[in-house]
Amino acid sequence: MEKRTPLAVSNAINKVMAFSLAGEHETVSIHESYGRYLAEDLIADHAVPPFDRSPYDGFAIRAQDSIGAKKETPVAFRVITEIGAGSVYNGKVGENEAVRIMTGAQIPDGCDAVIMLELTKQYEKDGQPFFSISHEYKKGDNISFQAEDVEKGTSLIQKGTYINPGIVALLATFGYANVRVARRPKIGIIATGSELLEVGDELKPGKIRNSNAYMMISQVVRSGAEPVYFGKLADNFDQCYSFIKEKVEGVDFLITTGGVSVGDYDYLPAIYEKLGAAVLFNKVGMRPGSVTTVAELDGKLLFGLSGNPSACYVGFELFVRPIVRTYLFSERPHLQKISAILGASFVQPNSFARFIRGKLEFENGKLIVNPVGLDKSNAVSSLAEADCLIVLPGSTRGYEIGWEVDVLLLGEETGCPDPWGE
Amino acid sequence: MEKRTPLAVSNAINKVMAFSLAGEHETVSIHESYGRYLAEDLIADHAVPPFDRSPYDGFAIRAQDSIGAKKETPVAFRVITEIGAGSVYNGKVGENEAVRIMTGAQIPDGCDAVIMLELTKQYEKDGQPFFSISHEYKKGDNISFQAEDVEKGTSLIQKGTYINPGIVALLATFGYANVRVARRPKIGIIATGSELLEVGDELKPGKIRNSNAYMMISQVVRSGAEPVYFGKLADNFDQCYSFIKEKVEGVDFLITTGGVSVGDYDYLPAIYEKLGAAVLFNKVGMRPGSVTTVAELDGKLLFGLSGNPSACYVGFELFVRPIVRTYLFSERPHLQKISAILGASFVQPNSFARFIRGKLEFENGKLIVNPVGLDKSNAVSSLAEADCLIVLPGSTRGYEIGWEVDVLLLGEETGCPDPWGE
Repeated sequence: MEKRTPLAVSNAINKVMAFSLAGEHETVSIHESYGRYLAEDLIADHAVPPFDRSPYDGFAIRAQDSIGAKKETPVAFRVITEIGAGSVYNGKVGENEAVRIMTGAQIPDGCDAVIMLELTKQYEKDGQPFFSISHEYKKGDNISFQAEDVEKGTSLIQKGTYINPGIVALLATFGYANVRVARRPKIGIIATGSELLEVGDELKPGKIRNSNAYMMISQVVRSGAEPVYFGKLADNFDQCYSFIKEKVEGVDFLITTGGVSVGDYDYLPAIYEKLGAAVLFNKVGMRPGSVTTVAELDGKLLFGLSGNPSACYVGFELFVRPIVRTYLFSERPHLQKISAILGASFVQPNSFARFIRGKLEFENGKLIVNPVGLDKSNAVSSLAEADCLIVLPGSTRGYEIGWEVDVLLLGEETGCPDPWGE
Repeated sequence: MEKRTPLAVSNAINKVMAFSLAGEHETVSIHESYGRYLAEDLIADHAVPPFDRSPYDGFAIRAQDSIGAKKETPVAFRVITEIGAGSVYNGKVGENEAVRIMTGAQIPDGCDAVIMLELTKQYEKDGQPFFSISHEYKKGDNISFQAEDVEKGTSLIQKGTYINPGIVALLATFGYANVRVARRPKIGIIATGSELLEVGDELKPGKIRNSNAYMMISQVVRSGAEPVYFGKLADNFDQCYSFIKEKVEGVDFLITTGGVSVGDYDYLPAIYEKLGAAVLFNKVGMRPGSVTTVAELDGKLLFGLSGNPSACYVGFELFVRPIVRTYLFSERPHLQKISAILGASFVQPNSFARFIRGKLEFENGKLIVNPVGLDKSNAVSSLAEADCLIVLPGSTRGYEIGWEVDVLLLGEETGCPDPWGE
């Protein structure tokens, strides 16, 4: 049996990322752009606001005409016309004249202040509308100036960014009826293991239902890629070999779970060898997921993740997700790393880096992170609750409650350029 | 013109939530369950692990046979058979006998410890496989015990919970090939305003492109509902009235944006009156979004959000999202509220509660929140960057850098039962 040397997590990730590549563009309607990733920078095709505009319902005036307005000496204005949002008044506004203006409407030429409706006293004289005010106004009061939000030509959002509702608003504002987004890479998923039943099957002695495949289908979708589930295989070398050889053709990346343990039933290394794939590593100094294997076949990455649910989950987030996000043009492809206060002790030292499924709590502006559920590689209950992974680097001593530790956020879109850089 | 009295935000939300109702169930395949909301509790149909199982590749033994094993006095075991994952050994294991066992396989009857493969010295004697060990093992060593992760019958996840990849793993584990999820409520969206161009249109004087509708389509999807976009309407009472009257029939909730300002062009209150809808409120003590109007027609909620993008965005998250989430069976329907340290001062006092678009930063286990972009109700640039809303309650004084404030998280699935409760 082959002796495996564990690689440090950061080295393993670097080895994988050396084969990362940017993906392809495709065009979707703005209706379908939410949740995709920008394939080009979002550029402002005009200033926002595109013209000086009124933020309130009220009256546009020339500020100079309001000089001297006080409670005791109110100043009167004659309302010469009114304009709704979307309309433009092209006439002249003279001394002590005003234009009734609606929210969002363009400020008439010559006017330079807006008075809120509520601050006027309206009346009629000689059948004409008038109002008076008891405060002075300065030039620019209550005007949303052209370009104060965004200048024309500004690059607002970088390519590779997740399209959230605010970005959709920007896309609409700047006329992107169609949006260039990153094509979702296709990720093939194969579950291996003679112990696996299908989800709909009754339990049998020694067997468990296949949960990894469905978990990973969801992780693939969450990462921004498109899952292609090829089904499950029993532990049989020839069958696995020809199946993988066939399926790898039609996808951008291939994930297998199971079959990568240290035992005699561990076919994957032999399958990779027969395929002619170069194994980047077959053991990582981490728990769970130490038996993660990654290989490269003509530039295409094959991920051999553990059959244990938690190990599989962590392996996906650490190794597959950043590859997907780079494909989607992100420059922050890794899980976001933040620091938090440990809410529990981990007394047992471990020479391998540990990734503990955790949940963050916010207490008075501080971040506390607690482990959730049972911290074993075969546990599934904790994955449901976890919103982060607590990183405990390999050490000759344990970790104690109250210590500051690194935490990787799950299901978060900001990401991180390189959490392993320091 | 009608005089409007602003309602406190918490009162306004309570008025809306009084009309909240739980929705309907539907069944989807587990393949499509990711991102939906559970309509019933997720129950464990069996224990996890379902049997005592090996977490490692190695040898199952009777711990008592290892007594006395030391470096100087290793103890030998004869390997009587081997079992792969998914197989079961039903034979007897006698004194100093061992069974070669793979990760995940069921522990044979009589065995009560597993020795990791790496810690054995394997050899052959008389053509039979043997190994020796130089440590003692205790009963239970390296065994994943039946039910240690989950006991049969446990209610693992509450209905109303967002189905993340970990929950999908649980659904698969417990045989949910089909999953009962909440039906997505249909939310109609109508944009009103004569100033609105379509996204594909060239800009014209006084006009802006319709961004709210597309932003809200995305917010509706993010909230867990199904958007039905009915298009945009000019500011025309009769047209708006008959259109709204017709469209409200086919949806669970209806949102309009625009037409709810304080001006003469503000048709919505009159439309609600003609429809026979009861207006819950037409002004809220908040910025942006003070002119938010909500009405109820035969138990169906009609949301009249501001035409200003930021006001519309905030109005949706505060009023519509919790209604959607309650419909999806959540008991934590509101945006999650946490506390963070203000990274900037807001010197200007404001009698209305303010919801500032912000971005959280994690610094050494502390949460800092900074405002993003231009904080005006008509700004769109800041919505793209924001991951939270900074809550500044109405006050006669401003807020200073370093103060602790409440923050509402955007695009987060945990939620909160009632952020306005205190």
